[in-house]
Amino acid sequence: MTTLDDLLTPRSVAIVGASDDPTRIGGRPLSFFKSLGYEGKVYPVNPNRDQVQGIKAYPSLGDISGEIDFVLVAVPAKGVIDVVDAAIAKRAKTVMIFSSGFGEMNEEGQAMQDRLTGMARASGVRIIGPNCLGVFNSAINFYPTFTTTVERKQPKPGGLAIASQSGAYGSHIFYLAHQRGLEMTYWITTGNECDVHVAEAIKLLAEKEDVHAICAYAESIKDGDMLVEGLEIARANRKPVILMKVGRSAVGAEAASSHTASLAGDDKVYDAVLRQAGCYRARTTEEALDIAYAARPRIYPTGKRLGLVTVSGGGGVLMADAAEDYGLDVAAMPKDAQAIMKELVPFAAPRNPVDVTAQFFNDMTLVPKFTRLMLEQGNYDALIGFWTSVAGSPTISPKLRAGLVEAMAGGDRKLFIQSLVATPEICKQYEDEGFPCFEDPSRAVATMAALMHFGMAFQKGRAQTPDVPELPPLPEGAIGEKQAKEILAGFGLPVVEDTLATTAEEAIEAARKAGGPVALKIASPDILHKTEVGGVALGLEGEDEVRMAFNEMMTRVRTAKPDAKIDGAIVSPMIEDGVDCILGSKLDPVFGPIVMFGLGGIFTEIMGDVSLRRAPVSEATALEMIDELKGRALFEGARGAKPVDKARIAKAISQLSIFAAAHAGVADSIEMNPLRVLEDRCVALDALIVKRS
Amino acid sequence: MTTLDDLLTPRSVAIVGASDDPTRIGGRPLSFFKSLGYEGKVYPVNPNRDQVQGIKAYPSLGDISGEIDFVLVAVPAKGVIDVVDAAIAKRAKTVMIFSSGFGEMNEEGQAMQDRLTGMARASGVRIIGPNCLGVFNSAINFYPTFTTTVERKQPKPGGLAIASQSGAYGSHIFYLAHQRGLEMTYWITTGNECDVHVAEAIKLLAEKEDVHAICAYAESIKDGDMLVEGLEIARANRKPVILMKVGRSAVGAEAASSHTASLAGDDKVYDAVLRQAGCYRARTTEEALDIAYAARPRIYPTGKRLGLVTVSGGGGVLMADAAEDYGLDVAAMPKDAQAIMKELVPFAAPRNPVDVTAQFFNDMTLVPKFTRLMLEQGNYDALIGFWTSVAGSPTISPKLRAGLVEAMAGGDRKLFIQSLVATPEICKQYEDEGFPCFEDPSRAVATMAALMHFGMAFQKGRAQTPDVPELPPLPEGAIGEKQAKEILAGFGLPVVEDTLATTAEEAIEAARKAGGPVALKIASPDILHKTEVGGVALGLEGEDEVRMAFNEMMTRVRTAKPDAKIDGAIVSPMIEDGVDCILGSKLDPVFGPIVMFGLGGIFTEIMGDVSLRRAPVSEATALEMIDELKGRALFEGARGAKPVDKARIAKAISQLSIFAAAHAGVADSIEMNPLRVLEDRCVALDALIVKRS
Repeated sequence: MTTLDDLLTPRSVAIVGASDDPTRIGGRPLSFFKSLGYEGKVYPVNPNRDQVQGIKAYPSLGDISGEIDFVLVAVPAKGVIDVVDAAIAKRAKTVMIFSSGFGEMNEEGQAMQDRLTGMARASGVRIIGPNCLGVFNSAINFYPTFTTTVERKQPKPGGLAIASQSGAYGSHIFYLAHQRGLEMTYWITTGNECDVHVAEAIKLLAEKEDVHAICAYAESIKDGDMLVEGLEIARANRKPVILMKVGRSAVGAEAASSHTASLAGDDKVYDAVLRQAGCYRARTTEEALDIAYAARPRIYPTGKRLGLVTVSGGGGVLMADAAEDYGLDVAAMPKDAQAIMKELVPFAAPRNPVDVTAQFFNDMTLVPKFTRLMLEQGNYDALIGFWTSVAGSPTISPKLRAGLVEAMAGGDRKLFIQSLVATPEICKQYEDEGFPCFEDPSRAVATMAALMHFGMAFQKGRAQTPDVPELPPLPEGAIGEKQAKEILAGFGLPVVEDTLATTAEEAIEAARKAGGPVALKIASPDILHKTEVGGVALGLEGEDEVRMAFNEMMTRVRTAKPDAKIDGAIVSPMIEDGVDCILGSKLDPVFGPIVMFGLGGIFTEIMGDVSLRRAPVSEATALEMIDELKGRALFEGARGAKPVDKARIAKAISQLSIFAAAHAGVADSIEMNPLRVLEDRCVALDALIVKRS
Repeated sequence: MTTLDDLLTPRSVAIVGASDDPTRIGGRPLSFFKSLGYEGKVYPVNPNRDQVQGIKAYPSLGDISGEIDFVLVAVPAKGVIDVVDAAIAKRAKTVMIFSSGFGEMNEEGQAMQDRLTGMARASGVRIIGPNCLGVFNSAINFYPTFTTTVERKQPKPGGLAIASQSGAYGSHIFYLAHQRGLEMTYWITTGNECDVHVAEAIKLLAEKEDVHAICAYAESIKDGDMLVEGLEIARANRKPVILMKVGRSAVGAEAASSHTASLAGDDKVYDAVLRQAGCYRARTTEEALDIAYAARPRIYPTGKRLGLVTVSGGGGVLMADAAEDYGLDVAAMPKDAQAIMKELVPFAAPRNPVDVTAQFFNDMTLVPKFTRLMLEQGNYDALIGFWTSVAGSPTISPKLRAGLVEAMAGGDRKLFIQSLVATPEICKQYEDEGFPCFEDPSRAVATMAALMHFGMAFQKGRAQTPDVPELPPLPEGAIGEKQAKEILAGFGLPVVEDTLATTAEEAIEAARKAGGPVALKIASPDILHKTEVGGVALGLEGEDEVRMAFNEMMTRVRTAKPDAKIDGAIVSPMIEDGVDCILGSKLDPVFGPIVMFGLGGIFTEIMGDVSLRRAPVSEATALEMIDELKGRALFEGARGAKPVDKARIAKAISQLSIFAAAHAGVADSIEMNPLRVLEDRCVALDALIVKRS
C-alpha cells in the first residue's frame, strides 16, 4: 500500500533532464532544492555535463550508486519510457513526469501513456503525471515542481493540503490560499494521471495525520470507488474535503474532456455522490478558499441553528436572507432572554438577527453580555457577527475582540465568524483568537453553511449500506416488460399483477379475472417505447372493448414494427388513483449503479426533481431520498390527498438499489415507471431492464 | 417638481441643534462643512451659545435674516415639529431630520411622523428622515451627515450614486465602494422616509446628468409606481440601477419590517417587477459593488454571447460552468478562425473557452492576435480573460496590458473583463485602460451577466403596455363562479360555456345540450372551495347519473354549509385533454395588480413555476411570461403532446391583465383556474373574482 510519505517524503531524488539554467523546466526544481533547503540527496542526471547548477551530475540513472526514492523526469516525451525503465531498475518508489506530449496530444501519445500505466501496475513503482506540474512537501522543503509560484510565495507548512488534476489551476489555488495566510504542507498536481490520480491523492491525504483539510480540483474522476473511499476516510478522520469538480455545464464538460481526454459522467450524479460521502462541492475557487480558510479553527457545527448579531439592522436582514438561501435555521431567541437584552439596550431588536445597534460600540461591556446570552440561552450551533468597518478601527477593534474572547471563554467551543472590514493585520488578530473574518456578511453565511455541512456529515458518519446478495444471472438477450416484471417481483419488488395474453380470448379471460377496467400493452422484447407504435390501450371494459383493442393493437404494431418479435399483449388492472413516481437505476461510468427516485413524468423530465444515490442504499437512506424531493408534499397530503406510507416507498427504493448493485456488471438501466404510490401500497405499472451493450 | 439639486445642492444651510463638540451628532456636520470646505452659507442654531465651533450661532431659525435652502434638524424628537414649522416659515426647500424616536419607536412616534408627512405635503417643503444618517454631495463638499465614515474615507466626486434606506448600511456600502476606488458625488440615506423615500431618490438620481450608475439598498418600497418610474427613467438614460431589496426570506422580511415598520410585499413580485423595469436585483453587497465597479467603463453588452480566453484550461472550464449558471452563451469560434489559432499555437484549444496555454506569456505578440480573432471572427458581445497571478507580475503585466490595448483599438467598443491576481496598483493600470479586473473568474462571469442584463434592457427599452379602458363596475357583494365566468367572458376571456341548473331536471337538460360527459359544481357566492364541501362531481353521463349527483350534492352542501346561499349547480362539459394552467391576478400592496401565469396545480403550488408581471401587459410581454416557465416544454410538444398555440394563451394573459388593471381599486384577486390549454384553444373551466375587503 502506497502512503503519502512514499510519494512526498523521499530521502533522495534524481532529476533526469536536469538543466543548468534555473529558469528552465528541468532547472527549476534543482534551483528550488538548493535555495529552499531540501536536505535529502539530489542527483542531477544529464549526459552532457559533469555538474548541473554546481552539483555533480550523472550520465544516467544507472550511473548513480546510491538508492533513489524519487525520480523526476524532464526529458522529451519520446525518451520517457526508457527513463521509467531505468527508474524501475533502480527500485525507485516514485517517478514524476513533467514531460508533455502524451494523452493530451494525440493517439500516439495516449499509447505511450497507456504503456506507462502498464509499467506502473507491473512494477509497483508509482507514477505521477505525465504532463504534470509537480508536487511539494514544504515540511522538508521538497519542491519538485516547475511552477514559478513557489518562488513568489514560499509555502509555510500547515494543515491545508491541495490536490489538483490541473497544474496551472493547482498553482493558482495554491497562490490564492497562500495569499490568505493558509499554511500548506502538501501540494499535489496529477496531470494526465497515468497512475496516481486525484481520487487517490485525496485518499492519501485523508490518511495523513498532519493534514486537516483538503482542497481539491478535478476535471474528471478516474476511479469513483477510490474517491468515495478517500472521502469516507476523510469523514472518519474529521477532515473536510472541499472539491471543485468542474465541467458542470455542457460547454464546461466538453472543454474539460478535451483538456484531459476523459469521460465526463453525469454531473448530477457527482453532486449526489459527493454529498452522500460528506464532501462539499464548491462551485467557485473563492468559495473553496473561503471554506478552507474558515476551517482553520477546526470547529464544525453539528446543526443548522444559526445566531446572528449585528450593529446594523440592514446587515442582519442580509444575513437572514442568505441563511434561508442555504437552508439554515435562524431560530428566535427565547422570550425571557429577549427581555434581558431589551433591558440592556432598549433600542435593540433581540429576536434573531439580534440588532444591538451602534450602542455596542459605545458600551463595549455589552459585547460579552449579548454574546453569552446568545450562546447560553439561544442554544445556537454557531454565531456570525456583523460589525462593519467601524470594528476595523484601531481604537475600537481591540475592545471588541477582547469582549468576544471573554464571551467565548468557558462554554463549549463554538464557531463564531466575524464580518468586518479591516486591514489584514487587524483581521489576523481576530484569526489568532480563533475567529475567521469575512468582509461580506453573505459570504460569511455561505461559508458557515459549508462548515455546518461538514459538522453534520462527520457526526452522521458513513451511511450503512445493505449487503448485496449473489443473484441468479439475468436471462440472455433483451428482456421484455413481462419478463422484467417477473424478475423484479421475484426479488420482492412491488409490480402490478398481470397476464400475458397471446389471443384476444385469453385477454378477455384475463380481464374478467382482474375484475375491473384493464390496460392492454404490447408484449415484445424488441419494443421499448410502446406508445409510439400504438402498443398501449387503457381503461378497457367489457368483452367487446377488450377484443377489439387486442386485435387492433396487433395489426397496428405489426405494421409499425414488422420485424419485432411479438409475444402477445399484457393485461393488467387499471389503477386510477395515486401519485406517479419513477424508481430506477442507471450505470454511471464513474460511480457504478446509481439509484434514482422522483415524481413521475413531467416532474422528472422537465423539473429535474429527482434524488440520486450510489447503490445500494438502506431504507433509512431511501427515506432521505424521498424527503429531498421538492414534490415530497404530495406524499404528505398536499392538495387534499391522503398521506402515503413513505416507508413502503423506501423499502422499494432500497430493494431496487440492491438488485441494481447485484447486477452492476450486466444491467445498464432498470426502471419501474410509473411506480404508482397509493395510501397503503405502491406498485409499478411498467418495468424495464436494459442490459449493457 | 423637486430636482436632485433642490435636495443636495443648497446655497445655504442651517443646523438646528448645532453642537460645539465636533464628535457629537449635532456637531459633526458643522465640523465636516468647515474641514471639507463647503462654500455655501452655514448658520448654526443654538439658543445657548453665541458661537458654535467658532461660527456665529442664532437662537432660532427665525433669527436668521438670510435665505435658508436646507435645514438640518438635530434636536430631540419632541422639538422637531416646531423646527419644521419654523423651516417652512423660512421657505426652506429641504428639511433633513437626524432625530430618532418616530415611527421606529412606538405609536406616538408614528403619529408625530405622520404629522411631518402632512406638513411636507401641505407646504411643499421636502423632508428627509426622520431617523436619518444624512446625505452628501461631494462635488460641493456638502456633508450634512453624522456618519464617521466620511472622516475616514473622503469621497471623490464621480458617477456612482448611492441611495439607501438604512443609514448604517448605506455608510457601509459607501465605505466599501470607496475602498474599491469608486467615485461618488451623491449619497442619500432616507431613514424613516416620512416624505422622501428610496424610490424617489432613485428617480431623482436617474434624472441627473452627472450620475452614471445607481446602487440602492431598500428594506421596503413606499411607492411602487414611483420606483418603476425611476427605473424606467434610468433605463432610458442608460444608467444601471443595482438594487439590494433585502428581506427576501421569511426571517429577513420580518427583521426588515420590524426595523422599518413597513409592509413587506411579495418577494417574487419584487423580483419580477424589478427585472421587468430593467433593474438588477443584487443578492449580496459584494455582488452589488462588483457590478457598480465593472460598470465604470459604461459599456453594456447588448447580447449574451461571451468569449472566454484563458492561459489555464481549468480557468476556462470554471468560467464556462459559471456562464451556463447565468444563462450566457459560450458559442464556439468559427472553424476557420480556430484553424488560424491552431497555427499560431499548436497546443491551443481554440473552440471557446480559448485556451492559449502558458505560451501566451512566452510570446506576447499572441495576445492581440488571439483577441482580435475573437472580437472579429467570434463576434462575441464581450470577452473575459483569465490570466492567473502570473499576469500580476511587474514584468509580465505591462506587456499583457499593452497587447490587450492594441487588440481593442479600432473596432467597436466592447467590454473585456480581466481576471488576474495582482496588486491594487497593477489592477489600476488595467482599469485606466477600461478593463475591469476580478480576482475570481466566476465572479467576473457573474458580473458580466449583470452588465449584459443592463445592455439588453437598455436596448429593449420600456415595454409597451396596452391601454386600460373604463369598464362597468363589478357587481355589489360576493361574486359566484357563474357570475365571474360571465363577467370575464363579457370582456372576451375564454371561459367554458356552462348553464346554471336550479333543479335536477334543469341539470339533465343542460347535460343533454352539452352532448357528452359533464361536470356539476355547486353554485354559491358563499362557497369558494367547492371540493371541500362535496360541491364538485365530474364525468357524469346519462340522465340517472346527473340526477343522482345533483340531488346528493344539494344535500351534502346544505349539511356542510347550512348558512350558504345556494343558487343551484353549474353544468359544464368535461374537457379531458390539454394542459392545466393557472391565469390570475393579485393586488400587491406595493405594485398594484400583478398578473400571474403558470402551469396548474402542483406546478404552481409545489414547484413555484409561475411568471409574474405588473398589469397590464401586452401580448408580446405575455409571450415572454410563457417562455419564462420551466414547464414551457409542455406547450412545445414535450412528451408526445401536440404543441399549443401560445399566441392564444398570450392573448388571454394580456386580456386578463387589462381587466385586472381596470378593476385595480376593487378586485383583490382574479383567477382562471384551471385554464385548460389545448392545441387550438384555451378555456377556463373555473373562475373566481374576489373583491377587496
